Amino acid sequence: MNRPIFVILAEGKLGLETSKTAASTIRYLPDRVAAVIDSLHAGLTTHDVLGTGGGIPVVSSLAEALAVDGETPQALLVGVANRGGTIPTEHRPVLLEAVGAGLDVWSGLHERLADDPDLVARARQQGVRLVDLRDPPADLPVGTGLALGTDAFRVLTVGTDCNVGKMTASLEIRRALQERGVDARFAGTGQSGIVIDGAGIPVDAVVSDFVSGAAERITLEAAEGADVVLVEGQGSLFHPGYSAVTLGLLHGSMPHAMILCWMPGRTKVYGGGYEWMDLPSPAAAIEAYEEAMRWVAPQLDSGVIALSANTYDLSEDEARRVVEEAGVATGLPSTDPVRFGAEPLAEAIERAWRGRQSPE
Amino acid sequence: MNRPIFVILAEGKLGLETSKTAASTIRYLPDRVAAVIDSLHAGLTTHDVLGTGGGIPVVSSLAEALAVDGETPQALLVGVANRGGTIPTEHRPVLLEAVGAGLDVWSGLHERLADDPDLVARARQQGVRLVDLRDPPADLPVGTGLALGTDAFRVLTVGTDCNVGKMTASLEIRRALQERGVDARFAGTGQSGIVIDGAGIPVDAVVSDFVSGAAERITLEAAEGADVVLVEGQGSLFHPGYSAVTLGLLHGSMPHAMILCWMPGRTKVYGGGYEWMDLPSPAAAIEAYEEAMRWVAPQLDSGVIALSANTYDLSEDEARRVVEEAGVATGLPSTDPVRFGAEPLAEAIERAWRGRQSPE
Repeated sequence: MNRPIFVILAEGKLGLETSKTAASTIRYLPDRVAAVIDSLHAGLTTHDVLGTGGGIPVVSSLAEALAVDGETPQALLVGVANRGGTIPTEHRPVLLEAVGAGLDVWSGLHERLADDPDLVARARQQGVRLVDLRDPPADLPVGTGLALGTDAFRVLTVGTDCNVGKMTASLEIRRALQERGVDARFAGTGQSGIVIDGAGIPVDAVVSDFVSGAAERITLEAAEGADVVLVEGQGSLFHPGYSAVTLGLLHGSMPHAMILCWMPGRTKVYGGGYEWMDLPSPAAAIEAYEEAMRWVAPQLDSGVIALSANTYDLSEDEARRVVEEAGVATGLPSTDPVRFGAEPLAEAIERAWRGRQSPE
Repeated sequence: MNRPIFVILAEGKLGLETSKTAASTIRYLPDRVAAVIDSLHAGLTTHDVLGTGGGIPVVSSLAEALAVDGETPQALLVGVANRGGTIPTEHRPVLLEAVGAGLDVWSGLHERLADDPDLVARARQQGVRLVDLRDPPADLPVGTGLALGTDAFRVLTVGTDCNVGKMTASLEIRRALQERGVDARFAGTGQSGIVIDGAGIPVDAVVSDFVSGAAERITLEAAEGADVVLVEGQGSLFHPGYSAVTLGLLHGSMPHAMILCWMPGRTKVYGGGYEWMDLPSPAAAIEAYEEAMRWVAPQLDSGVIALSANTYDLSEDEARRVVEEAGVATGLPSTDPVRFGAEPLAEAIERAWRGRQSPE
């Protein structure tokens, strides 16, 4: 999938937690982002707001975005969503405006652009494309454990919660492993990972009977010829809204090893409506994920082998302290891959991989 | 949903395990079934083949089914499927023939009748309906634990495997509870339960992000004004193809108590492609389900309170022995609700329900 030059729509929400797709596209594809629309932060740069993306300007309208110097935008990427993945009503005019200006529109929302007759008609007139990233393939199988057969070492990022940095951890680990000379591949499972990597299946948009089959298929595809395949995790076993997706991913990708992602600064389950739910400790989460893998593949002895924290909301000192404490409490390598580097994670994976290749 | 008089299509597969929808419709709606098509068993009755349904004739073609004495059939119900829920190619002519004969067609398969242009055109011509039971509502929410708020006592059937009798257990328990004067309701979650009960949501056809939201909604709806709501379970935490659906149901329906369903005569995970997987013991399964509930609702202290076996493939003596042994091994009431009655299950539920109402 070729990535165009994007204008990203993040109206009112540009932030690491509030507009995941926007923030991660800016982090990993800064060269493909011409401008970001968010009138709340207009006048700033993405670096000011997110700490990444350098001087990408934040503007307050599509017209301003199109007037920015530099490469001409080719597509509008929807970087915000309502809960449940519907297109916010107030943004429909912007989508129509983008189509009118000759831009493609890319969206990772559950609600499909292709189901909006107005938008479809206007796009046809203008000869532009509507790209629904969350539209899974139609011919997915029921999972049957085929991923167990890969030569590549399978690693899944899992979490104490959703939105804690599983995709980011996977991408940072890939870079670190590649720097160590390990042929590591990324298997994208969500809209952001698919935009960034140009491939993958949005597993949370797959009919539930086929979730593990979807995970199986992307694992097999990404594993082809690789040393290590890094499957992007989704949701959390502790999240009552998304735990089904998480378990399907676990049982479809059949990881040899897992990296537990967590957010030390967060205490309650993410999203509106979960304030009554405490998040588990890393140790409790580790137990749950290892147990869930034993249900279907006890022979794998699949374990969590390292911790990946997201500490963006903590001071540097505080971050160092909690990352270290968690490492001591669990006896595992522990880091924040963005803040302190992904090397401890890459090293743990390489060691586990080589250990499986030549068991004593 | 009004149920018409059905002809059931079960070609080559009429059996308790091989045609679940056919077998359970015959068991619970015998008055609505005029005939069953299965040329392998033609000339027999459903009682001969399944032990239920009395004298419903098994015939070898739709023409024969339409010639059977008695009430005139109004609909063809598809009672067989390929893996993954596609319509077997060899059955398309029968569906067209049914439409041609003025019958509605009902199907619980993933592949929708409404997506077959030939069938849709022919149905329109004939003025008959195509009913896709596995077509979930479009406006389902992400689950947020709302089911925790019901006044009704929530009971979910869970299993060591798929296709072990969770729906049957739920329906038998409902009858037994109603006989005890308890207002018990059934919340259907699969195509068979929906045909039989006339309501429900096919959760395994729901996009995975909304599975627990779907379970939440049917639980809330069925719980309205009831003493006890019996949510029909699906799949198994130990089944790599369907575990996602199972966990979504658990975390959406938020059961106070669970009934573990199992099939003592089966040793490997159900379905082609799982011969390498041993089934868990009831004790191991109990641990897993209770653990999975603790992830999201430790305050519920949700436990498995009784065992429901499906022993249709065992001799009466053998069945009695394994049911008793499992009860002793787990310390729980244990029965086969079809063979030995559902009273032990109903009694365990009533006791647990009354215990929650007036805690000491």
